[in-house]
Amino acid sequence: MTQIDFWHELGSSYSYPAAMQIEKVAAEAGVEVRWRPFLLGPIFKAQGWSDSPFNLLPIKGAYMWRDLERVCDSIGIAFCRPSRFPQRSVTAARIALIGHDEGWGIAFTRGVYTAEFGEGRDIGELETLARALEQIGQIPELVVARAEAPEVKARLRADTEEARCLGIFGAPTFVTEDGELFWGNDRLEQSLRWARQRSLA
Amino acid sequence: MTQIDFWHELGSSYSYPAAMQIEKVAAEAGVEVRWRPFLLGPIFKAQGWSDSPFNLLPIKGAYMWRDLERVCDSIGIAFCRPSRFPQRSVTAARIALIGHDEGWGIAFTRGVYTAEFGEGRDIGELETLARALEQIGQIPELVVARAEAPEVKARLRADTEEARCLGIFGAPTFVTEDGELFWGNDRLEQSLRWARQRSLA
Repeated sequence: MTQIDFWHELGSSYSYPAAMQIEKVAAEAGVEVRWRPFLLGPIFKAQGWSDSPFNLLPIKGAYMWRDLERVCDSIGIAFCRPSRFPQRSVTAARIALIGHDEGWGIAFTRGVYTAEFGEGRDIGELETLARALEQIGQIPELVVARAEAPEVKARLRADTEEARCLGIFGAPTFVTEDGELFWGNDRLEQSLRWARQRSLA
Repeated sequence: MTQIDFWHELGSSYSYPAAMQIEKVAAEAGVEVRWRPFLLGPIFKAQGWSDSPFNLLPIKGAYMWRDLERVCDSIGIAFCRPSRFPQRSVTAARIALIGHDEGWGIAFTRGVYTAEFGEGRDIGELETLARALEQIGQIPELVVARAEAPEVKARLRADTEEARCLGIFGAPTFVTEDGELFWGNDRLEQSLRWARQRSLA
């Protein structure tokens, strides 16, 4: 079965609708999804940006929030603009890495995105992450402690560096097995078609 | 019949596939298109940018060129990366304004985009514009002279200011009659659906 890598940043607004849809849409296309959390912050910094482009360019930011509202509406998921953006996502991303190893990463990631962009909560606060962990039957204290382990931190750093080396500069980005990048939630279907055609060829 | 405004910059790479497709796709959707050339340069400058974001961020630029190649391939139009990007588009835009008044603006605009991104020519050179005008039966010397008229210059400035006031920060952008913005070539179909639904409601 052909595969795509779903590179997403837990603080990225357009990664939210992608995370909520991708398993269903990919299954219909016969493509397997590898969930790859990473951090956009270090990639932005390497480009000389100190903040999200949506904050650096307020008219682009205004468009994004309106557009995200329309996108969420069109696929039937909740939308609530958080008061802080972007949020500190590093702990959430480390937890997600552990979760993917243990089979609860997708449910956790969806819970985090829903809290952040569906309910307007702050995922930089441990309380929000604890709630998302409880909802999927995990014990927050144990998981959060494990997320601080040096090997988990190193892995997220390495994954972020891998994203940068692939040429990723935004999220979500879908990468096919033959190395094609598709940037943006609205490119999900196209990336799946590409993956499918290449696997049949 | 409901209408959308097709805001495009003659030097914008993703405006090329949009310009080549929009009349056909819009006609199928029962939506009329108003062609609105404008200049992105002044809008970028107002945001503190001295160049295209595709040049300011080379990894984003690398992605754009590869992606544009794929897009052109998928809709069956030529692609040839021009050696200069972005190009000086102000004369082309002024000529297009005259052309839209006189019924040859769409053919001219498509010719300009094809020269620029389908053949890799420089639309900042009068020779390229003259060729595009000749191909549609216009006399280059006469049209180029008229494009230098103060009222044509003023109109392009006013249209660019209108774009900025609408919240436009990139091209192409599709704007529906109820004021919704859809940014990017890949949002054409969505903007048409929106226009259509609102006109039926």
